[in-house]
Formats: sequence, C-alpha cells, structure tokens
Amino acid sequence: MDKKATLKDVAAKSGVSYQTVSKVLNGKANVSAETERAIWQAVEDLDYRTNAAGRNLRTQASRLIGYTWTPAPPWQPNPILDSFLSSTIEAADAAGYHLLLFPTHNTDDETETYRTLARTGRVDGFIVASMDYDDPRVLLLQKLNFPFVAFGRANADWEFPFVDVDGRAGVAAATRHLIEQGHTRLALLAWDGRSRTGDARRNGYFQAMEEAGLSINQDWVIQLPGDVEAGIEATKTLLSLPAPQRPTAVVTVDDQLAIGAMRAAQSAGLLVGPDFGVTGFDDTPGIQHYSPPLTSLRQPLHEIGREIVMRLIALIEGRTIPESIILPPKLVVRGSSLRSQ
Amino acid sequence: MDKKATLKDVAAKSGVSYQTVSKVLNGKANVSAETERAIWQAVEDLDYRTNAAGRNLRTQASRLIGYTWTPAPPWQPNPILDSFLSSTIEAADAAGYHLLLFPTHNTDDETETYRTLARTGRVDGFIVASMDYDDPRVLLLQKLNFPFVAFGRANADWEFPFVDVDGRAGVAAATRHLIEQGHTRLALLAWDGRSRTGDARRNGYFQAMEEAGLSINQDWVIQLPGDVEAGIEATKTLLSLPAPQRPTAVVTVDDQLAIGAMRAAQSAGLLVGPDFGVTGFDDTPGIQHYSPPLTSLRQPLHEIGREIVMRLIALIEGRTIPESIILPPKLVVRGSSLRSQ
Repeated sequence: MDKKATLKDVAAKSGVSYQTVSKVLNGKANVSAETERAIWQAVEDLDYRTNAAGRNLRTQASRLIGYTWTPAPPWQPNPILDSFLSSTIEAADAAGYHLLLFPTHNTDDETETYRTLARTGRVDGFIVASMDYDDPRVLLLQKLNFPFVAFGRANADWEFPFVDVDGRAGVAAATRHLIEQGHTRLALLAWDGRSRTGDARRNGYFQAMEEAGLSINQDWVIQLPGDVEAGIEATKTLLSLPAPQRPTAVVTVDDQLAIGAMRAAQSAGLLVGPDFGVTGFDDTPGIQHYSPPLTSLRQPLHEIGREIVMRLIALIEGRTIPESIILPPKLVVRGSSLRSQ
Repeated sequence: MDKKATLKDVAAKSGVSYQTVSKVLNGKANVSAETERAIWQAVEDLDYRTNAAGRNLRTQASRLIGYTWTPAPPWQPNPILDSFLSSTIEAADAAGYHLLLFPTHNTDDETETYRTLARTGRVDGFIVASMDYDDPRVLLLQKLNFPFVAFGRANADWEFPFVDVDGRAGVAAATRHLIEQGHTRLALLAWDGRSRTGDARRNGYFQAMEEAGLSINQDWVIQLPGDVEAGIEATKTLLSLPAPQRPTAVVTVDDQLAIGAMRAAQSAGLLVGPDFGVTGFDDTPGIQHYSPPLTSLRQPLHEIGREIVMRLIALIEGRTIPESIILPPKLVVRGSSLRSQ
C-alpha cells in the first residue's frame, strides 16, 4: 500500500481511534509515548500524507524554523555561532519567523528529534548544518517532504537546496599565499575521517601545490582530529623530519590545528612567520591577538545566514527558490604567514 | 477603572468588536497593525487580565522559552553563548520545552519584542540576560505578570527570580591572587557607564585592596569601554606614570581589556607575568593559547543555564520555585599573573 493511504488506514494499522490519530497528527492530543509511537510508525509504514502536495502533517504554520548545532567543548571557541545565529534570527524576524533551538542528542538515531519536530508541526522547516556524506537528516526530510535548507553539501548526486562555502578555493588561496611568500615545502594538517567539508578543504592544498608544480612528500599530509593538541603533535612530527624534507610552512583546515602548529613551532625555537608559515580556517574571533596573529579564512557568515533563511522561507511558503550557492571565504593575512614582519 | 476590566471594556475602549478582540488576545486573528495596537493599548490602559491569577493572555501553553542576546562584534569572541545556549536547550528539552530566539532591535523601545511575544502567547516565559539597573524589561514583564527568570540582577530593591554570578567575589579573588604574587601597586580596568555587573566586579578590586591594606592611587582606576583597543590605551597611560606610582599589575573586568593590557605591556618591553601581572574575566575559550596564557574567571555556565531553566519552568507551570542564587566564578590561574613561569 502506498501513496493513497488515508487517516482511517493509519488508525486501523496503529490500533488507535480515528479521532485520536487525527488529534496526534495535529499535535493536539496528549497520549502515551507508546500510542504516539504506534501512530507515527503506521504513518511511516503507510507513507501517509495529509494532502497530495505532501505539505506535511500540519494544520497551520508555526512560523518557526528549527536549528541545532554541535556545541564546542567549553575550552574551545565556537568560531561561527554568534554571527551565524544573529544573522539568521534577523533575517527570519524580518519575514515574521523565529528560530527554535533544539539539542543534538547522541542517540542511535540522530534524526529522531527532526522527525518529531516535523511531524508535530512544531517547526515549518529546518536549517540543517554540519552536513556530511550520507547525511541521514537529508534522507529523512526528503522522505517526509519537509522543507529544509542545508549549510553545506552531502553526496555529489544528492539534490537539495543548500548554501555552502568554497573550502577548496579558500585553502587553495592560503596555500598559494604561502608559496608566494617563498615556501616550497608545505605540509597539510587535515581532518581524519570522511567529511565533505574536510575533503574540499584538503583538496584546495593539492590543487594549489599541483598548479605551482610543487611535489608533495607523503609525510607532509597528516590527517588528525581538529584540536590544538593534535596540531601540536602532528607539527612536532613534521619538524622531526630530516632537514631536506622538513616543511617550512603548514596549511591547516581549521584554526585549532593552526594554533597547535604555531605552538609546536615556537616550542622548537622557530619564529612563526619568518621561519615557519602557518594558516588556519574560520578566522575565529580573537585570533588576531595571538602571537603572532593568525592568518585565516573568513566565511561570510552574515551573508550565509541571510541566504539560507531567504531560501527556507520561500520553500515553506511555496515560492520558487533561487539556485543553491557556494560563497567564497576571504583570506585574512596576518603575521603567522608573513616572512617579513 | 482597574482590575475588574472585562473583555467588553477592552472592546469598547479600543472601538473594535468583542469577537475581534477575543481573537487578537488569543493570537488567532490577522488584523491591521493599527487595530492590534489599539486593542493592546486598551488592554494596558485597563490593566485587563484574562483571569484572576493574571496568568497572561494565552489560551494554551506554547512550551517555548524566549531568549535574546546582544551579538558580539564579528572580530570579538562571545565568551558565553555556546555553553550557555547548549546548557539551556538541554535543560529545557528535558522538560519538554524549546528555546525561541529573537533579535534585539535597536529601537526606541527595547521592550517591544518582549511585549509582542508575551501577548501573542508565542512564548510561555523569558530568560532575560544582560541585566542592568532600571531594566525596562523587568518592569514590563512584572506589569504583564509574565514569567521570566533573569541571568543577573537589577536595582537592589527590585524583587524577581534570578541566577547570577558573584562578580565581586571573583574579581576580589583575582586581586588577592596578584597580591599574593607580591604585587602592591595594582591598577583596575573597569567598564565606564552604569552597570550592575560592572559595579560588582569593580568593587571586588576595592574590597581586596582594602582587606590587604593597600592604598589605591587615583590614577590606577580607569573606566573605559570593554574592548582590546581601550585596554591598550589605558595600559599605555598606566605605564607612562612616574616609576614610583607605576602599577606592576592590572586587574580587569573582562578578557578583552586583559588582552589589551597584555599587548600594551609587551609593546613596552615588559614580560607579562614576571614583570607585569594581568587578570581577565570570563575565561573566554581560546585564551589558554595566548602568549602568555591569560589568567581569568570562569562562570559556571552549564550550572547557570540549568538553574535558570529549572526556575523558569516551575514558574510557568505554577510550581514553587527555589530561591534565587548567586554562584561563584572560578579563578583559573595561568602565566599572565605568575611571577615565576
């Protein structure tokens, strides 16, 4: 059975009265968690939709946009949260919408909260961030035909509306900048694990090195977790290479790794900038006051927030939405990558 | 006329039909902004309440908590947002509530958004942060008898539920720590303007100096905006004092000022820590990687978030709430305040 399932079918399958099912689907009944689960299971099994257009199971608009993020550890700055949130809530407010925040639960099924919020009509749509390959949230929301716009992309052949930053172009620009400073032996600190964002940033280094005709020593590419301690350890390893193979600069895919690289180089007695070039990614607020100030790539967060919200509201309201876009980050050059200070 | 006003009175006074008034008060009508304003004006003039307990003008719970904050400038880290938000949304979620974010508008009347959200029943209560003396949001929400819990305090004789951090005790601990390091000439960088939080922090310095029997040179107390540049300028001024009056350490009321103090001292050729002690406030994520790492005061943000949400939900649900509390910040000692490294 598919597509033509009715509310009656859902009631029959879940063993709950028609009235109760109707109320639950409209977010108006207080029933046991068990009953609710049975109803939603039946909705899912039967692929039930309240109307042909599949405009979800809601009776009226909530004018709320759902958003969550993975909090940084308390000792680590969140480079984007303040700017991204303030730009999205401003843009949403201008259109009469508000942002609803919900926590990321570390359960077996990370899509559970999305499903509940969508089905109960608590929100009209989602901003989905921290995107990755095979992202189960994309699969779920597409299945529910529920509005969302992603900050980032997933698998190349998946189609959904997104706004992204060109990480490859950013890291390529940082790499070229170090090459222009006279470096020919450049290492890369990139994230371990599979990650579309990480892959893009890493490939920027490969692209710029190839364009410059520079060969890459296999010891120069280190994949690691994105934190300061990992950056310190990896840079120590790089600096212990025999002199002819030792890199004189390191390109990184995030500021935490770059800070680690700076600290390890300084511990080894090198002057960061003149002796050893370092670049980061994110332009984390505050890094302009490090010693030396860190060169980094700044994402246009206000523009990203606005562009995402504009698309999402158009989608919610059934209007045509502009094509997805990939915005360039800006290289902000500071002392950590300059040979002469 | 007061207290006993009816819906009919509101209709008569605003010149709008009984039915329309009823719908607007329940957030269900789309009327012109003018009509809506007339109705709310009448509600306010007549001090109209839907029921004796004054439990707002809502027909049903939204299970949403309203929150806003003043975004930091893009180049300045927000020391608390990530931890505070993640702790509040976790605590709210556990009780079946979500956080609704709204922007701070720089209009003539900063309470306008609070009023609208309260009256339309968009939220069940507010977390009110960035508190200050004579805070108009407190006056409004008390007048509307609308649930809120404050992060911080206002006038000493105002009574409302709050969770606060003991800024005085924190800065006193930092000052004592510098005195224990052997400093006797300690300056203070404090915020200009009136601010309850700023006053408490400033007074911590006065308290600790008095307890230690140290006299304060009038040139040592500088009031300024809380940013790095102001901290640099003020510290330059301190370092230009004649040698016998020149301070050897500076206590500050925020990390941005402390970073400015470190930079100015370093520009003057001083070793921060051994030659010149510096302490901050907020333990901004990332300051542990400055050169030298910055000594600061850490607010217990996760506890603060939980305590605020717990009180607010009890208030919304009509339960007794625990007394307001003042939590101690923790002094985190690092190189910037240590004489021997």
